[in-house]
Amino acid sequence: MSEKYPYSTLYSFVKNIFLKIGCIEEDAALASKSLLIADLRGVDSHGVARLSGYVRLWEAKRINATPQIKIVHETPSTAVVDGDTGLGLVVAPFAMQVAIDKAKNVGTGWVSVKNSNHFGIAGSHAMMALEHDMIGIAMTNGSAIVAPTFSIERLLGTNPIAVAIPAGQEPPFVADFATTTAANGKLEILQRKNENTPNGWVQTKRGEPSTNAGELKNGGALLPLGGDREHGSHKGYALGAIVDIFSAVLSGANYGPWVPPFPAYVPMPENKPGEGIGHFFGAMRIDAFRSAEEFKLHMDNWIKRFSSSKTIAGHEKVIIPGEPEVEFENERMKNGIPLLQSVVEDLKDVGSRFGVTL
Amino acid sequence: MSEKYPYSTLYSFVKNIFLKIGCIEEDAALASKSLLIADLRGVDSHGVARLSGYVRLWEAKRINATPQIKIVHETPSTAVVDGDTGLGLVVAPFAMQVAIDKAKNVGTGWVSVKNSNHFGIAGSHAMMALEHDMIGIAMTNGSAIVAPTFSIERLLGTNPIAVAIPAGQEPPFVADFATTTAANGKLEILQRKNENTPNGWVQTKRGEPSTNAGELKNGGALLPLGGDREHGSHKGYALGAIVDIFSAVLSGANYGPWVPPFPAYVPMPENKPGEGIGHFFGAMRIDAFRSAEEFKLHMDNWIKRFSSSKTIAGHEKVIIPGEPEVEFENERMKNGIPLLQSVVEDLKDVGSRFGVTL
Repeated sequence: MSEKYPYSTLYSFVKNIFLKIGCIEEDAALASKSLLIADLRGVDSHGVARLSGYVRLWEAKRINATPQIKIVHETPSTAVVDGDTGLGLVVAPFAMQVAIDKAKNVGTGWVSVKNSNHFGIAGSHAMMALEHDMIGIAMTNGSAIVAPTFSIERLLGTNPIAVAIPAGQEPPFVADFATTTAANGKLEILQRKNENTPNGWVQTKRGEPSTNAGELKNGGALLPLGGDREHGSHKGYALGAIVDIFSAVLSGANYGPWVPPFPAYVPMPENKPGEGIGHFFGAMRIDAFRSAEEFKLHMDNWIKRFSSSKTIAGHEKVIIPGEPEVEFENERMKNGIPLLQSVVEDLKDVGSRFGVTL
Repeated sequence: MSEKYPYSTLYSFVKNIFLKIGCIEEDAALASKSLLIADLRGVDSHGVARLSGYVRLWEAKRINATPQIKIVHETPSTAVVDGDTGLGLVVAPFAMQVAIDKAKNVGTGWVSVKNSNHFGIAGSHAMMALEHDMIGIAMTNGSAIVAPTFSIERLLGTNPIAVAIPAGQEPPFVADFATTTAANGKLEILQRKNENTPNGWVQTKRGEPSTNAGELKNGGALLPLGGDREHGSHKGYALGAIVDIFSAVLSGANYGPWVPPFPAYVPMPENKPGEGIGHFFGAMRIDAFRSAEEFKLHMDNWIKRFSSSKTIAGHEKVIIPGEPEVEFENERMKNGIPLLQSVVEDLKDVGSRFGVTL
């Protein structure tokens, strides 16, 4: 049911589409790289499968292909960036670079972003810090599909957090996760297979427990990490709230139920308190704390100790965050990226509208 | 089964004990305040109930009552603090103050701490930022009682994270939570009542699901937030790991299974890779991003929108993180702090050893 495409083929295709909607060369290249890193790392829901969604947002005039991204407020270690309604795939790397530059100067850099759009996978931006021997942090809010503990209203996005930490001989530690029990992409996969979800992933529109993978269409909601109060959902809710506040209340973007939706056919929320969606980025220079060499030796020791932990019967090993993604990346860079037939058709459809062949 | 004591009575008692073990006046006052804020805010497991534990650590020469706490490395926005084996209740406010001072100068401050001990509740230190119109962040590692996903070994502490965010008319947003499904204190309460835990809190020493609140004594482990892989325990594990790395690998403290235990009778781990336990603190000046006044108006709007969300039948309202603790604090400051008889006896026992009356 899936066909493999070389990375270079998909990169050229995606870049040409971004050029066709009016992006400058540099932005088209950056956006393509930001988008495709999701496919490379096995996060199929956030990669080329979303290309047509970005194009529709541009068609609906919700994305500006030629943004004037700029710093609107700053101190030696902080900045607020206005994304000028640009592609999040371009705005986010710009803002992360600002964080990295500030870290070079004063040890750390922290950037809150307003007036942006969906930025692909958080890990992609956090990982920009690694080659500078820095810890990278990235988070974003998103349109509200998550109900806080005890709520029947959807007030938060899946609000992911990514933290990338350099190691020495070992691959870097890269955690990148939605602050919900399960990401929305996993529900979509179950719906396609006509399967139920486990308990604790979704609730009905009245807040009853549900295992219906299509519950969101009925007015239901995704649940914060933890699932219910007894299993710590107030902690997942708090994490999602922190991401929302750092990304949007600090920058002047929209927050809570007012975050603009990704699907272009969904109407914009009314009485929005801010501009666009918000992100938050951080970069911390390792040697602002201790020598990078020493740190990496200890990270290798940390990783080896956790990797070699005794496991529960039936499980081969304890996984280090980011480890499966590195395996995906190596395999897919070599053998190509598998795309579902429906995704291929969607891409071909976008291509035909702009005269670009896949 | 419980008796109420005025805050001032407990404060004098605790301070006198800290003076008796050799703390200077200023440190004894600070440690008492740091400890008792847990009781005031309803976190009974982390307050005076632990006083005798701190004293036993001092008796075992694992706590230095007269530490020379100092900055051993710094940049304009970062520092590493060496706690000189002092009380975490004293080392943590010192380090948080360094973070605040750096934020005053360059917008944010980030401090990793080594060679410390247990610091009470994380929220206590994060909240120091609030009066400066800053966001405060505090985290700490702890001795290993948590098994990462798929592991049967205990490799992480309950590694809490606290984030305190100022608001305007509304009380501040203060999240403070262990990165496990449930904190260890909750298990202790169930054990006393001879009750079982819900699913997803603990596992047996072979990694099987368990509802035995005493499972840790049998070699079992607490579980990361999420409980099991299907419910996102890899996310709770990643969070606990991030706290461990920020607190200890950045500073040079012990990490993973090598973190010194709180009970003085538990032997120290062998071949420790660092010094003492580690903490991590952050302070971000609001006006390093946007005007504090504007930010607070939006925080009030955020809080009001979430507070007024429609609820699941049977639940009165959606709770803002920190809201229940403010109610506890007001009530207990007025009517006294209820202590279990066993805690009162423990305190009296400590008091009699040092000639201090409760």
